[in-house]
Amino acid sequence: MRIRIILAGRIREPYLKEGVGEYFKRLSRYATVGLIELPDEPVPEKYSEKELEMARRVEAGKILQTLKEEEYVVAMDIGGKRLSSVEFSQWLEQRALSGDSSLAFVIGSTTGLDPSVIARANFRLSMGPMTFPHQFMPLLLAEQIYRAFRIRAGEPYHR
Amino acid sequence: MRIRIILAGRIREPYLKEGVGEYFKRLSRYATVGLIELPDEPVPEKYSEKELEMARRVEAGKILQTLKEEEYVVAMDIGGKRLSSVEFSQWLEQRALSGDSSLAFVIGSTTGLDPSVIARANFRLSMGPMTFPHQFMPLLLAEQIYRAFRIRAGEPYHR
Repeated sequence: MRIRIILAGRIREPYLKEGVGEYFKRLSRYATVGLIELPDEPVPEKYSEKELEMARRVEAGKILQTLKEEEYVVAMDIGGKRLSSVEFSQWLEQRALSGDSSLAFVIGSTTGLDPSVIARANFRLSMGPMTFPHQFMPLLLAEQIYRAFRIRAGEPYHR
Repeated sequence: MRIRIILAGRIREPYLKEGVGEYFKRLSRYATVGLIELPDEPVPEKYSEKELEMARRVEAGKILQTLKEEEYVVAMDIGGKRLSSVEFSQWLEQRALSGDSSLAFVIGSTTGLDPSVIARANFRLSMGPMTFPHQFMPLLLAEQIYRAFRIRAGEPYHR
């Protein structure tokens, strides 16, 4: 399985980079994983709805350009489907069974995801009702994906 | 407001410690915050339900001993109440209005929380259906508390 995490923006905090690196190392036993950081669009401190929309659209262009045709796209979306870790593991299993061997998890920047990215997505996944910094998402996602593979393999991890 | 995060166990990963330190620094503008790491009970790789229960009970003893009588106790519990970040901010505001000026957020170890801790809790909070390592919880919690104060102060943060 090939898994890419596509982040609109860069992980600026070294501690978050380190955490992602840690889980990517562990994940390498189960899948080919990569993090793609796209340059985010600067939005002024005080912005209009229009400026936000524009930034979102430019970002969407970069995201859509980065996605490969064969990729099964998961949009990280607070309004998306909420799964427990065990359900997420079953969902990942289902992807493998359906022949979706290339997955891309897309994380929008602070401006949110443009409808065109949502339209390209095959699935919208939510991690719960709380809003976390988008910078946290690659770490949380890498950990959940690792956990999912461990659960799937029947290895002790899911506590 | 005084806020303590009580973790059954230690944060072993340096990158997670760093992240917590970062948010504690930011939080110091709004509240007195502290992290209490309790020694966790070693559980053998293969354990019986009884061994687990015992470890949970010993941990509960340490947690209950650490809690102060005046503390409003929040048990982090996957089966607890789920709040959005805005709702969590309002909930925190409500604590202040109710005169609950000392809060303790309790995070169980991998063995989970004993019923006696749940019984002492004034509130059970869930961060969503996914299980994350208990080691992640202080960081996630510190960030959400910081976010809550920012939302409450009308400062730009809640994207």
